[in-house]
Amino acid sequence: MERGYKVTIIFVDYGMRYAYSKDIKSNFQAAEAMVRDALMAVGFGVLTEISIKDSFKQKLDIDYKSYKILGACNPGLAHEALGSESLIGILMPCNVLVIDNEDGSTKVVFPNAKSLLEVTDNDEILELSSRVDSLLRSAFDSIS
Amino acid sequence: MERGYKVTIIFVDYGMRYAYSKDIKSNFQAAEAMVRDALMAVGFGVLTEISIKDSFKQKLDIDYKSYKILGACNPGLAHEALGSESLIGILMPCNVLVIDNEDGSTKVVFPNAKSLLEVTDNDEILELSSRVDSLLRSAFDSIS
Repeated sequence: MERGYKVTIIFVDYGMRYAYSKDIKSNFQAAEAMVRDALMAVGFGVLTEISIKDSFKQKLDIDYKSYKILGACNPGLAHEALGSESLIGILMPCNVLVIDNEDGSTKVVFPNAKSLLEVTDNDEILELSSRVDSLLRSAFDSIS
Repeated sequence: MERGYKVTIIFVDYGMRYAYSKDIKSNFQAAEAMVRDALMAVGFGVLTEISIKDSFKQKLDIDYKSYKILGACNPGLAHEALGSESLIGILMPCNVLVIDNEDGSTKVVFPNAKSLLEVTDNDEILELSSRVDSLLRSAFDSIS
């Protein structure tokens, strides 16, 4: 039943170690645009994009839901990270997911950079990852 | 001094937790082509490409060495992984680095998928990451 208003955020999940997510009442395309805008607002450009749906159709001839991996990067922080750890490109960019729940809602998933970068055992990188997480978290919170 | 033969592999480093690398006597472009061919031979396509050099020039107006992040993915293994862990896209694709040492040699860096995927605490993903590592390692070994 239409009630004249819309609850946009359906469910927020901070329970995963390496990521957190929210389900929003939005179609896939609009959700992707919101994510890109939110990332840009905190200085992260989207450098790469993988459509799992298109890739699985092309390579495996499998029908899969819309699922995009957006590779986001803040150039200034990336430059700082490379100065501290030259092979840190292995863990770049930060991936943000947009996943069609196929029920009129879309899941938006952000990475816990710190948990992913712990593998470096590099204190400078861990400090930097806290700054990355703080920016990403504010982008996540702005999506509503 | 030219000795009439060429030692192609200069140095191999398995000492990093999350990656391993080799320096090869090759220019950057040729090394990148070798890496792409080696990945393709084990069923990994390169889905994304980031030129750190171009990105830093554009966004920060900084001159940086040639440094590429190639995002490699084996569609069949990716499909299996997503079946086990729906948000695993956060850790896809596998990044391989090509870095200009600016001394006539190029560094090629491959990821230790297992060490990167330990954060999932998912036994199926860890088993799968061993298979990924075995394929990536044979691609790495073929570059010479």
